[in-house]
Amino acid sequence: MGYKAEVGLSNKHLHLKSEDIEVLFGKGHTLTPTKPLKQPGQFACEEKVDIVGPKGVLKGVRVLGPARPETQVELAMTDARAIGVTAPIRESGKLDGTPGLKLVGPVGEVTLDHGAIIALRHIHLSPAQAIEAGVKDKDIVSIKFEGERGLVFDNVLVRSGEGHESEIHLDTDEGNAAGLANGVLGEIIK
Amino acid sequence: MGYKAEVGLSNKHLHLKSEDIEVLFGKGHTLTPTKPLKQPGQFACEEKVDIVGPKGVLKGVRVLGPARPETQVELAMTDARAIGVTAPIRESGKLDGTPGLKLVGPVGEVTLDHGAIIALRHIHLSPAQAIEAGVKDKDIVSIKFEGERGLVFDNVLVRSGEGHESEIHLDTDEGNAAGLANGVLGEIIK
Repeated sequence: MGYKAEVGLSNKHLHLKSEDIEVLFGKGHTLTPTKPLKQPGQFACEEKVDIVGPKGVLKGVRVLGPARPETQVELAMTDARAIGVTAPIRESGKLDGTPGLKLVGPVGEVTLDHGAIIALRHIHLSPAQAIEAGVKDKDIVSIKFEGERGLVFDNVLVRSGEGHESEIHLDTDEGNAAGLANGVLGEIIK
Repeated sequence: MGYKAEVGLSNKHLHLKSEDIEVLFGKGHTLTPTKPLKQPGQFACEEKVDIVGPKGVLKGVRVLGPARPETQVELAMTDARAIGVTAPIRESGKLDGTPGLKLVGPVGEVTLDHGAIIALRHIHLSPAQAIEAGVKDKDIVSIKFEGERGLVFDNVLVRSGEGHESEIHLDTDEGNAAGLANGVLGEIIK
């Protein structure tokens, strides 16, 4: 039997650098946490922005905190297509050559020249959990979900180290394709 | 090596009964084909309707022909959630107990008391293709796709008989989760 972890489904969201937070929400503004996320130190924020692409707008997209060194917009492929953006599948933080977007906040706007990605599916594991699972940081594994829309995701990146906690991160397209809700267990099968 | 078939990705769409065609598009109206589909006798139509759910509207959704005995709306889970509809995963034509929706055409409106589904993923095969693949109508198989978002869909229904032609039908959530474009090959692996 393989190691099992809960799935955490990521709706479209964004991470902001401090400079962009001030432009969007006002001088001196800092993010307002509303709910801790499972990954230690991460949180959902009260703040929302509209994301504008060449063909449409995604209204009221949630900001996740804390502030990051670079602004990053994470969309499902369905979302990206809806606003006319062709975003690559990328690991978080690897933003070279990614397309830009316009962000509209209550106070101001930011035009990004890069930063839109479709998140590479991944599993977070603490160092101890990685040992238990028999995997290590940067491994590529396959994860199986049972059920009416049961499937096996290949090419799942392992992200392990301090500050990680057992959780499989999929986007809404992936979650819907597998018929998942938050907290459903997936099993590392190879 | 397993049998391979091309994928056909289904965007949200609907099938209409003749009575509903007349209400939506006018007395005596018949569907106008614009493009044949791979399944023999099936075609995309010029006609589009707006689909209205409790929480939103899907504008300009394509009608597929020919007319059917019952009106059926096929949505991806992302679409269904966007308009506040909880539709079950169903085989085409199995509409008992499914939720309704409002359809708005250029001439009139239809309020359905049932008919909204999320299509059960399936593979169409002619009788000869089914023999070649070593499967039969109503079998449940697993189909593997390679690539950056490679995965294995379990619980894929085989639909075989006269009037079927080799094609794997997935919806947009499933296609996006696997990073697929129309015509990509999937392999029956069990």
